[in-house]
Amino acid sequence: MNHLFPRHLLGIEGLTREAAIEILDTADTLSHEGVSVPATLQGKTVLMAFFESSTRTRVSFEMAAKRLGAQVVTIAPSTSSVSKGESLLDTVRTVAAMGSEIAVVRHARSGAALFLADRIATTIINAGDGTHEHPTQALLDALTIRRKLGRIEGLTIAICGDVAHSRVARSGALLLRLLGAHVRFAGPPTLLPPGMADAYGVSVYDRIEPALEGADVVMALRVQQERIAGNPLPSLREYNRIFGLNEQRLALAKPGAWVMHPGPMNRGVEIDGALADGPRSLVLDQVKAGVAIRTAVLHLVATHQALLG
Amino acid sequence: MNHLFPRHLLGIEGLTREAAIEILDTADTLSHEGVSVPATLQGKTVLMAFFESSTRTRVSFEMAAKRLGAQVVTIAPSTSSVSKGESLLDTVRTVAAMGSEIAVVRHARSGAALFLADRIATTIINAGDGTHEHPTQALLDALTIRRKLGRIEGLTIAICGDVAHSRVARSGALLLRLLGAHVRFAGPPTLLPPGMADAYGVSVYDRIEPALEGADVVMALRVQQERIAGNPLPSLREYNRIFGLNEQRLALAKPGAWVMHPGPMNRGVEIDGALADGPRSLVLDQVKAGVAIRTAVLHLVATHQALLG
Amino acid sequence: MNHLFPRHLLGIEGLTREAAIEILDTADTLSHEGVSVPATLQGKTVLMAFFESSTRTRVSFEMAAKRLGAQVVTIAPSTSSVSKGESLLDTVRTVAAMGSEIAVVRHARSGAALFLADRIATTIINAGDGTHEHPTQALLDALTIRRKLGRIEGLTIAICGDVAHSRVARSGALLLRLLGAHVRFAGPPTLLPPGMADAYGVSVYDRIEPALEGADVVMALRVQQERIAGNPLPSLREYNRIFGLNEQRLALAKPGAWVMHPGPMNRGVEIDGALADGPRSLVLDQVKAGVAIRTAVLHLVATHQALLG
Repeated sequence: MNHLFPRHLLGIEGLTREAAIEILDTADTLSHEGVSVPATLQGKTVLMAFFESSTRTRVSFEMAAKRLGAQVVTIAPSTSSVSKGESLLDTVRTVAAMGSEIAVVRHARSGAALFLADRIATTIINAGDGTHEHPTQALLDALTIRRKLGRIEGLTIAICGDVAHSRVARSGALLLRLLGAHVRFAGPPTLLPPGMADAYGVSVYDRIEPALEGADVVMALRVQQERIAGNPLPSLREYNRIFGLNEQRLALAKPGAWVMHPGPMNRGVEIDGALADGPRSLVLDQVKAGVAIRTAVLHLVATHQALLG
Repeated sequence: MNHLFPRHLLGIEGLTREAAIEILDTADTLSHEGVSVPATLQGKTVLMAFFESSTRTRVSFEMAAKRLGAQVVTIAPSTSSVSKGESLLDTVRTVAAMGSEIAVVRHARSGAALFLADRIATTIINAGDGTHEHPTQALLDALTIRRKLGRIEGLTIAICGDVAHSRVARSGALLLRLLGAHVRFAGPPTLLPPGMADAYGVSVYDRIEPALEGADVVMALRVQQERIAGNPLPSLREYNRIFGLNEQRLALAKPGAWVMHPGPMNRGVEIDGALADGPRSLVLDQVKAGVAIRTAVLHLVATHQALLG
Repeated sequence: MNHLFPRHLLGIEGLTREAAIEILDTADTLSHEGVSVPATLQGKTVLMAFFESSTRTRVSFEMAAKRLGAQVVTIAPSTSSVSKGESLLDTVRTVAAMGSEIAVVRHARSGAALFLADRIATTIINAGDGTHEHPTQALLDALTIRRKLGRIEGLTIAICGDVAHSRVARSGALLLRLLGAHVRFAGPPTLLPPGMADAYGVSVYDRIEPALEGADVVMALRVQQERIAGNPLPSLREYNRIFGLNEQRLALAKPGAWVMHPGPMNRGVEIDGALADGPRSLVLDQVKAGVAIRTAVLHLVATHQALLG
């Protein structure tokens, strides 16, 4: 194992290329038929602190932790002291003091994971913080692409839709660029903050069609209806008409291009339902890769902790 | 094991007499003192997808799955992507793709379990779908009766109350008839849809008294207050006066007749509290039988899957 | 083991000094580095019935039960039959009938735990009932103090704040007095019911300053904003000004006095944030002691049950 593997996984920013590849390789190794997953977390407790709703991220982290032998403790705002006004920091610090050595945290505020990592002697895994980062999503997307196309280096990957509110787009761009891909962001002008090209080293398009030309992979982003304030979209129907991914638009991409979506999907809005269920879709491959990536990440941070003492 | 045991348990409709008896017999076998439950689900994950509130069904399925060695993953609407508008199908398909081979599903829409079974390569256990079916409830009721009376064949069983909204009544009638009982439905006319006699092969009564005459077992149905639209009931108090099960009414049944209720009970509405807690009540026996039936069902579908490969 | 160890843990009232000390000693024994916790609850199911929100109590009981080998089943009002109007008694009795031998119960009504213990053949652990008792909180507070100061006998302990609504204050006073401490209650007159001095054998103060003089330990109580009806407090800001615990006020206590808080804290209301995080604070020690106490309590009641047969 790379002895520089980080203590926390707060984002793709700050992750080395070597650590990223180690996670992908470990995910593949631990997924092999006949390989029994090591009991790295036997006797340990992993806290799942999900302050925003989630199915796929929470459940796949939970499955991953249990496969590695951990006990899992879940706190959700509705049934915890958060409903009594306790701060994020006090809540997570309390469970850490009970003996939980790893906390997987999702929170609506950008920077929440870093904020905790700076203040608590517990390993923090960022499971999505506001519009900032969602590193395990980027890793599972990269793993899905690598499994399908054999490499990431040199590929052209178009990430399309509500870029403004998407931590998936940000983490994805950082990781895919780190691994040598050409990344394109496409979104309606009101959902495309200025400065993205420089900040993320990507090409930026305010229409979807040119972004798709020659792409190996097209990733449609969820329209974060719950996050959109001030009505940047005229209507979901109009969004679909000008930006929805469908068979005709996909034909602009490279022949045999793959379609991805982080889920949950708004069928008929950012992606056509038949396309999502069709032979070019990697949506369920992404879900499978998610369990593998989260198993690898938990295994690696736990091994790192053991090395540290 | 019967090699025709079904892949899914969607309802009593379609279940053979042999498969039903196999479930009852397996439930009894696995409940014997000193019998250790086999680790049929070791290393497997069972998804509990409860889109409606539940205590007894959810908890007993969870206990059953864990007894068989499974990991249990629970999703509830309030903390999952369902709150972001994700479809039932996408939610269950996602967790299935993570490696869950059995999904226990409760949903407010009739037909939800069949809908999923037609579209996902996961074994679906129906834990209640709308007003359609609730097969494990029927099985645990049958087991409770068989344990107490030694048989079901030839018994007269009166199912009384809000038949219109009751999946318990429908599944119960189908199974008890399949096993040779005479089944009676009794309900106020507004809670008794037309055509039940033909559809379910039962006798139908719009008053409770004649339905009780000579019955071996009387099952009171929960008044589904949360499901009643358009006010078919004048008031709960009037319901109790004309249809509530109490000592006097029970005296019309066979001497020593047993009282059942699927729970949760509205004491003082469809059933008198003292009767529910009294010596003729099988309410807690039903709960005990529930864990046994769910253990048997999970064991049998898992064994069937293993046979299929 | 003391063969008189009680079947239930409903409160500190009724607990003998011997049983209390046995719990504290067992908590310390089972916390020793290198001691492996016995699998006292292997094959058993512990029900967590939390009808009020909780993080630290629920999670630490859950961790404790799992350390002892138990399966844990959780019911919460929002996703259970409680939302269909089922009574507390029917809900807990149902899960008990499924085979859960120990139920940990939190409920907003004072007396809920006793009510259940009188009616169900299941061991009941009170995890907080209304404004009545919270015995494991008192035990973890006593353990924290004993670990820090080596004894409880003869110490002066000031419990300050919203005494009226505090089950922590009541259970704490009973236990600390039982173990030989001098206990003081201090609270604003509107949050200090009459008769406390006689009922609990404590000294009562309607200002915080005199209560702190010479105290070894100062415990600040949470202002139970969610429980305060009729506006006994002018404002949280005024509460902080007249009753908030801070460095200056702590200087009135014995040099080196310790600060405690049961959590969740309202920083800047009943306690100054810097004090809570400072070197005199035992807040996280209390959390750690909580897991130890709950492990000890579950171990002892289970061992007692085994002795009974």
